[in-house]
Amino acid sequence: MQGSRISDALAEFVDEREWAQFHTPGNLAKSIVIEAGELLECFQWSDSAEESAVRDELADVLTYCHLLAARLDLDADQIVLDKLEKTREKYPVDRARGRSTKYDQL
Amino acid sequence: MQGSRISDALAEFVDEREWAQFHTPGNLAKSIVIEAGELLECFQWSDSAEESAVRDELADVLTYCHLLAARLDLDADQIVLDKLEKTREKYPVDRARGRSTKYDQL
Amino acid sequence: MQGSRISDALAEFVDEREWAQFHTPGNLAKSIVIEAGELLECFQWSDSAEESAVRDELADVLTYCHLLAARLDLDADQIVLDKLEKTREKYPVDRARGRSTKYDQL
Amino acid sequence: MQGSRISDALAEFVDEREWAQFHTPGNLAKSIVIEAGELLECFQWSDSAEESAVRDELADVLTYCHLLAARLDLDADQIVLDKLEKTREKYPVDRARGRSTKYDQL
Repeated sequence: MQGSRISDALAEFVDEREWAQFHTPGNLAKSIVIEAGELLECFQWSDSAEESAVRDELADVLTYCHLLAARLDLDADQIVLDKLEKTREKYPVDRARGRSTKYDQL
Repeated sequence: MQGSRISDALAEFVDEREWAQFHTPGNLAKSIVIEAGELLECFQWSDSAEESAVRDELADVLTYCHLLAARLDLDADQIVLDKLEKTREKYPVDRARGRSTKYDQL
Repeated sequence: MQGSRISDALAEFVDEREWAQFHTPGNLAKSIVIEAGELLECFQWSDSAEESAVRDELADVLTYCHLLAARLDLDADQIVLDKLEKTREKYPVDRARGRSTKYDQL
Repeated sequence: MQGSRISDALAEFVDEREWAQFHTPGNLAKSIVIEAGELLECFQWSDSAEESAVRDELADVLTYCHLLAARLDLDADQIVLDKLEKTREKYPVDRARGRSTKYDQL
């Protein structure tokens, strides 16, 4: 399964470098937003961006997300599916269709 | 495969709501950092955080990452594995072990 | 007045480079969070950071804040003072003293 | 002077609530990026935003910037002016005029 291939590869990478000591949940949350800022930098002045840069920065965000999920014993795919169910309820199709309005103002 | 289960579920969710029109790469990159900020808010004053809040916010970050990957025809799992290979080279085990130093100062 | 010294210096800097065309409110808001991510990077793995790096990154965040304020004809100092009055009401001294709890849970 | 009016008002606000204990440099840097994310949320799906929301969120970013400056004994106005001198050198008028290119690619 792809999901666990990633978990295994990241765990090995971290173990080899003895980096788990730095990967507190708080530090990983910081890392996610730092990398998300770098990703956004690709789009700072324009909505079009160089694809290879976007790919690398998006990969960095995802990597820290997977590390945080692993640190908290969460399944990175399952929490997305679980959250999607909640979001479906907050944004019913008949009211949300074609609108970017936030749920509390629908 | 879990990866495509997620892509399929998200694509259906977006299609039903006709939201693809809002999901430009730039808007998705903004959304990722906005959600990453909300995730960090769980850790604003402390390194310990309520797990259910972290789970939901991490899911939001991951959701927008998957949407951006799909928008750019990228495989969210593969780009993580590809980037990991580059990072392995930037942080050789013998120099990086036990240190949080950035690669350009190793 | 220091406030207008800054506004004037930044306006001259931007005019000379003909950069106002890039400084839409949305692009400046992106720039603020991008620079805020770089500031946080100083503290990614530790609460102590090199002071000169912090100073430069904090200056970048502030610079884009001033540019956004100017773009929207806001007085950067006055909006801080105005917001402080609102925050005083949301966090009454007797309930907020010594606690980092968010106002809606006080 | 406006600058010290702000420092004084913020210091009094923090002292009354005994919040200095939470305001480590690292926590303030987190707070800045969290608020910057909320500011960006005003522009998540569009470059136009409700002005009163932008004003409040920008004020929050600025407030934490001032608190971090105060915590590190930095003059929030002076560091902007100092940084501007460096940026002038990195972006000479003749090469940077009318272009949003990053300095290392000019």
